[in-house]
Amino acid sequence: MGGDAVGDYELEHQHGKARVRVARVWREGNSHVMVEWSVAISVRSKSLSAYTEGDNTAVVATDTIKNTVYVLAKRCCRSLSLEEFGVMLGEHFVTTYPEVTEAHVSLNQRPWERVSIDGLQHEHGYKLGLENRTAEVHTTKDGKSVVTAGVSDLRLLKTTKSGFEGYIRDKYTLLLETRERMMASSIRSVWRYSRKPSDYNEVYATVRKILESTFFGPCKGGVYSPSVQNTLYLMAKEVLLRIPEIESVYLNMPNIHFLPVNMPAIGVEFKDDVYLPTDEPHGSIEAKLSRKELITSKL
Amino acid sequence: MGGDAVGDYELEHQHGKARVRVARVWREGNSHVMVEWSVAISVRSKSLSAYTEGDNTAVVATDTIKNTVYVLAKRCCRSLSLEEFGVMLGEHFVTTYPEVTEAHVSLNQRPWERVSIDGLQHEHGYKLGLENRTAEVHTTKDGKSVVTAGVSDLRLLKTTKSGFEGYIRDKYTLLLETRERMMASSIRSVWRYSRKPSDYNEVYATVRKILESTFFGPCKGGVYSPSVQNTLYLMAKEVLLRIPEIESVYLNMPNIHFLPVNMPAIGVEFKDDVYLPTDEPHGSIEAKLSRKELITSKL
Amino acid sequence: MGGDAVGDYELEHQHGKARVRVARVWREGNSHVMVEWSVAISVRSKSLSAYTEGDNTAVVATDTIKNTVYVLAKRCCRSLSLEEFGVMLGEHFVTTYPEVTEAHVSLNQRPWERVSIDGLQHEHGYKLGLENRTAEVHTTKDGKSVVTAGVSDLRLLKTTKSGFEGYIRDKYTLLLETRERMMASSIRSVWRYSRKPSDYNEVYATVRKILESTFFGPCKGGVYSPSVQNTLYLMAKEVLLRIPEIESVYLNMPNIHFLPVNMPAIGVEFKDDVYLPTDEPHGSIEAKLSRKELITSKL
Amino acid sequence: MGGDAVGDYELEHQHGKARVRVARVWREGNSHVMVEWSVAISVRSKSLSAYTEGDNTAVVATDTIKNTVYVLAKRCCRSLSLEEFGVMLGEHFVTTYPEVTEAHVSLNQRPWERVSIDGLQHEHGYKLGLENRTAEVHTTKDGKSVVTAGVSDLRLLKTTKSGFEGYIRDKYTLLLETRERMMASSIRSVWRYSRKPSDYNEVYATVRKILESTFFGPCKGGVYSPSVQNTLYLMAKEVLLRIPEIESVYLNMPNIHFLPVNMPAIGVEFKDDVYLPTDEPHGSIEAKLSRKELITSKL
Repeated sequence: MGGDAVGDYELEHQHGKARVRVARVWREGNSHVMVEWSVAISVRSKSLSAYTEGDNTAVVATDTIKNTVYVLAKRCCRSLSLEEFGVMLGEHFVTTYPEVTEAHVSLNQRPWERVSIDGLQHEHGYKLGLENRTAEVHTTKDGKSVVTAGVSDLRLLKTTKSGFEGYIRDKYTLLLETRERMMASSIRSVWRYSRKPSDYNEVYATVRKILESTFFGPCKGGVYSPSVQNTLYLMAKEVLLRIPEIESVYLNMPNIHFLPVNMPAIGVEFKDDVYLPTDEPHGSIEAKLSRKELITSKL
Repeated sequence: MGGDAVGDYELEHQHGKARVRVARVWREGNSHVMVEWSVAISVRSKSLSAYTEGDNTAVVATDTIKNTVYVLAKRCCRSLSLEEFGVMLGEHFVTTYPEVTEAHVSLNQRPWERVSIDGLQHEHGYKLGLENRTAEVHTTKDGKSVVTAGVSDLRLLKTTKSGFEGYIRDKYTLLLETRERMMASSIRSVWRYSRKPSDYNEVYATVRKILESTFFGPCKGGVYSPSVQNTLYLMAKEVLLRIPEIESVYLNMPNIHFLPVNMPAIGVEFKDDVYLPTDEPHGSIEAKLSRKELITSKL
Repeated sequence: MGGDAVGDYELEHQHGKARVRVARVWREGNSHVMVEWSVAISVRSKSLSAYTEGDNTAVVATDTIKNTVYVLAKRCCRSLSLEEFGVMLGEHFVTTYPEVTEAHVSLNQRPWERVSIDGLQHEHGYKLGLENRTAEVHTTKDGKSVVTAGVSDLRLLKTTKSGFEGYIRDKYTLLLETRERMMASSIRSVWRYSRKPSDYNEVYATVRKILESTFFGPCKGGVYSPSVQNTLYLMAKEVLLRIPEIESVYLNMPNIHFLPVNMPAIGVEFKDDVYLPTDEPHGSIEAKLSRKELITSKL
Repeated sequence: MGGDAVGDYELEHQHGKARVRVARVWREGNSHVMVEWSVAISVRSKSLSAYTEGDNTAVVATDTIKNTVYVLAKRCCRSLSLEEFGVMLGEHFVTTYPEVTEAHVSLNQRPWERVSIDGLQHEHGYKLGLENRTAEVHTTKDGKSVVTAGVSDLRLLKTTKSGFEGYIRDKYTLLLETRERMMASSIRSVWRYSRKPSDYNEVYATVRKILESTFFGPCKGGVYSPSVQNTLYLMAKEVLLRIPEIESVYLNMPNIHFLPVNMPAIGVEFKDDVYLPTDEPHGSIEAKLSRKELITSKL
């Protein structure tokens, strides 16, 4: 990000409104579609004098930014995706205000899921789930938007078919090698689109499914994981193989440990049965897999 | 709870260990069953002199209490319910230690749900959900346990079929009457058993289903709610009608507001479409419905 | 709490508004006094038919309850204590509404502390601290209020002068006896007034100081603690000895463990120097010390 | 960060251990110094085959990384700063393992503050405060470290001397101009060192004091703020003016709103007295001020 010169200094700055919450209900007869979004918007603008002089003439008030979220939500007369709403917002700010040079929109969709009762979908009933859907849209003055989408708090665990062997052993090493351990993670993934897919919601559902099925393997037998690193890589690769509109995928997969409980002095000998779940410390494994041709073509 | 006399004072006291986490895996061939529990245990004991004199001879160390959770988890060679594990723990402490007169065990089961892929259940894969299952067991010196069970963080929302009219209007009243609003709650329920049911897990599943289906009504058309109070009452009544082993049911149903967004000055006129979701403040509605004969018979 | 009969059942119920936040600034010339409170109000009322019939004619809307907090905050033209505001609210609801039979008010004061710069107090500057001040007021139909006050999140730690010895040793015991350990707690205390003190704020400050100085002992040398239990008891006793208006004091003092780090295989031998701080599991020690004569006189 | 080529893809990756907690006590006679740190370490390494092949031969196990924190904490025989510990860790990993090319260490110091009783400092007593001290150290294979330090959760509020006027007004604007409002923020700041100062702890204390005194102005009279933007800029500028070792300072200053409460219909007319504190939505204002010569000299 470029900054503004102020004497011997340079100032980079942006402002906006965060945690703007909005719910939108679309009613088609008795059948309702509802989403709840939390939006954070930041704009870069020619408002240096607000910082240096206390002169606000080039400032879009953060309250105005918040109001705009509701105005635009009102305008959406048909159900649209989180990513599309982000693009609408980004375009609005760079085109409406000459002072605004860039807009960054972060969005979060609360996991309200339509309720099913005895196999039937309810017309207007929702239940909250756990994992969050996210999107980030960065819009430049020419009205072009870069879209990334993601999922967070996707917590997966398998009770077997995981091990860790053959790593560096030195004078700081205490960990025992194993081919039988629990494997658990709270997965966060972000993928970047090189072009607009035909349906953002559909891609989201597909990525979600790929992540899960690669992590677990077949329902019968599963799949052996020699490390979180390897499982992460296979998950990312599968996403790129299957979805051409995605140019890169980032995965953050903390290794949430379930420690063997072994207290032989009081009669508890570990036999892959009793574990101590811990949140801290946890392994941190993260990586980003990108298509090479795109990286090259951008040079 | 009775206390111990100390000169002109009376001291009531208890101690134990909280947030003891344990995961237990039961393996039957390739098919695994896994639970993750967090346990808090408090004992009342004849340990007054620990408080007044610093004499610990009658104190069960909290570290010992923690160890016991693992010893007992190890002993469970077949899958058992949260409630049964609580009873095991309660009985252990009052029968093992002459000094212990009462034990109170609070338990929480993390919502790990077996994963399904393309309609098939995975042998060893789990995903975390949102709502928590809870239990409380109070065991007295005679080895008898009172068991309550519960659910928390059950977050339900319906986009219509909810209203609120006819309440007291006075000089502090601003709320408008309505027959069309969102209704959302983060439900916590606790029910008390008068006797052991044949299967705690089954009762849990049944109560969960009753709460949900009463809240929402039929998949087609739903059911009109004239107040959170009324919906709460119908939910509680249905539980008592259907499950004879439950003697009382408590429901805490905060009214989580989705406020109409109305900003006519900037072109946003509310038409049951755009809402502002809020966490605070929220209505607080709670009630407990009990079978009368049981109350009477206890007098 | 008494309940209402409904056929074969009995219903106990209450409703209100929680997390009502209000900040109040009192200006005396250039010198300002500011408080931020979060209030939860629940009323018991003759509104059974709201539950059973959906008839709201006896219901004080929770929105009205919220508005009242602001009306009463406005009326306070001089600075008043958290406890006094709670009593004002409690009295308001039982006296204003014939339908309301009891009111329960829970209050929390955010720890905004006046800023000092170079030893001088700032006229209108505040900084947030950690520990919270709390109050609970229960008001009955006759207008009488029972007041309790408290502090929470008071986190204290001493690096020495703490041990634990002589406790029960059995086949579940692994803990080593020691006369040298860290001692840390996140203290929550609640005390109950038998009569109104001349100044609630002053009593709060005094209790806070007693808790702290008893926990730590003299600045030079400190004081040896043979157990959390004993330290807790001495803290409670000192409060009752010093403040006659307080009839009982409850202390919840989890033992937050700082475990010795001992990994001789890689050269880390514990010498009271390196510790592993943990939040879970933690010891739970709680007790309530009451004046006996008051208990007796209430029988 | 550079990545590794894998067929048509490129993989960027790092792994480590997060939330490693350690407390260190240094004892000089009866006078103790205690710190509690939480550390996250990530290393970049030549371990591509762990991802692509499940071959862990070049992987430093995250458990080993955790152990190292304790080994190094043990070695510090004199009290040292958070930043120095970060540098020690970063250097350790790049110099010990040929496979490791870069290390990134994030550290957090819990705000345990020495207790004072009646104006005297306690030898071994600590109380937890609110604001957190942070540091980030990035170490490259040549053993050079870039150090940034910071503070977070510094929550400041002033009841007056704040306004906001003259901003863009358009059809999305509802906010009223004012010269009298509350101003509150939860400040996070990060500053980057161009060279090692003589004492990191001293610089930390100085920056903290500059931020606070610039925000509030003189104890008598304060200072008028025409916007959060302007106050932020003055805070950052003062840091650069006063501390030559700091090359840039970033400030994130959300505008936490205290909304005027105005309900004339029920007798509450706002007179700068009753406010509604809110956490969401909040203004987001952030900027980074850098010395220009340093930016230029790096080109």
